[in-house]
Amino acid sequence: MITVALAKGALLKDSVTQFAAAGLDFSAVLVSNNRQLMVPSSCGRARALLVRNGDVPVYVAYGQAQLGVVGYDVLREHQMPVAHLLDLGFGQCRMSVAVKESSGYKRASDLPPHCRVASKFTRCAREFFDALDLPVELVHLTGSVELGPLTGIAEAIVDLVASGRTLQENGLVAVEDLFKSSARLIGNPLSLRLDSGALNSITEEMRLNTKMVRETV
Amino acid sequence: MITVALAKGALLKDSVTQFAAAGLDFSAVLVSNNRQLMVPSSCGRARALLVRNGDVPVYVAYGQAQLGVVGYDVLREHQMPVAHLLDLGFGQCRMSVAVKESSGYKRASDLPPHCRVASKFTRCAREFFDALDLPVELVHLTGSVELGPLTGIAEAIVDLVASGRTLQENGLVAVEDLFKSSARLIGNPLSLRLDSGALNSITEEMRLNTKMVRETV
Repeated sequence: MITVALAKGALLKDSVTQFAAAGLDFSAVLVSNNRQLMVPSSCGRARALLVRNGDVPVYVAYGQAQLGVVGYDVLREHQMPVAHLLDLGFGQCRMSVAVKESSGYKRASDLPPHCRVASKFTRCAREFFDALDLPVELVHLTGSVELGPLTGIAEAIVDLVASGRTLQENGLVAVEDLFKSSARLIGNPLSLRLDSGALNSITEEMRLNTKMVRETV
Repeated sequence: MITVALAKGALLKDSVTQFAAAGLDFSAVLVSNNRQLMVPSSCGRARALLVRNGDVPVYVAYGQAQLGVVGYDVLREHQMPVAHLLDLGFGQCRMSVAVKESSGYKRASDLPPHCRVASKFTRCAREFFDALDLPVELVHLTGSVELGPLTGIAEAIVDLVASGRTLQENGLVAVEDLFKSSARLIGNPLSLRLDSGALNSITEEMRLNTKMVRETV
């Protein structure tokens, strides 16, 4: 049986749609009163594991799931040994440096050396500021990072920006992007090597479907 | 102005009650449609920062909040430099090792060496198994750790257990406790040293109130 790790939250609905196009119907996970974390597909050929965003690459890396869908941001931050199979195109956002609008900083290199930067993505932030050769103190937060500059715990933040509404509501502005992110199909390397065809055909159908969607847009 | 970091979620209601007994009314944070993360007390003397559990000690350690309420489990896991002021008595739970009921393991030392253990609290788990002299591979998960033994990613988990209902629903059973946890009042060490009396009087009133509650029970 094929097991697919799906991230709860913003990516779930589109993930289900994409697997449906490849013949696996996981729509039961979208039923609002579903409390189950392991949900069989309607055809019985596969099952979905409903886990947190950050746990998708863990389940795939350990082979408990052969496939998974997760944001590129998570893959960059956690660097687990998984195969990157496909950019699914949805869930688009940017990993950005943001500062208080009133601060006057126009780019990341305007930040004063040794200032504090708050983020959930401290590995990505570390790489970015190292490459800039700007020494900063990173403060690891687990949620509501936009509170950072408001409370004074940090001069800037590194966070995901989709519509930009959260930044705007908090008087913040994005000044520089680290990278763009979107949902990715990932696979367990060993399962892919031992694959008798099923994983490959799902991946190919999703690839065709993603390409078609792009050409229509 | 005094700033108090409060954890969103299970501890929030009791935290507000405790501060009310000490003269600070943060009941506005309990209004269900409140989206604000910084909420002034009704007297205007203080404000609450509503943050994630794991971020409470961060805000207190950096001095953006002078006081905070958070579970002892978080303090044990993150080891931030904050002053532990008071055991507030609510939010009681245990950090436990749990295994599949069908596994037959009766205590942690029954686990096979080099087996995998899943947890959100990998530092606590590491300390525990090191003290047992049992080498295990820790798998860091960020949510739904009870899925670990069911999917086969881990033989055992280390997680917080309150009522035990989640374990039971997933065919798991707690076999050993690492420690007991409850909500703690913490403070920023420097703010406490420079305190002109306000922080001390809040702490003392909460201490008296906690003691009274205990004697009534």
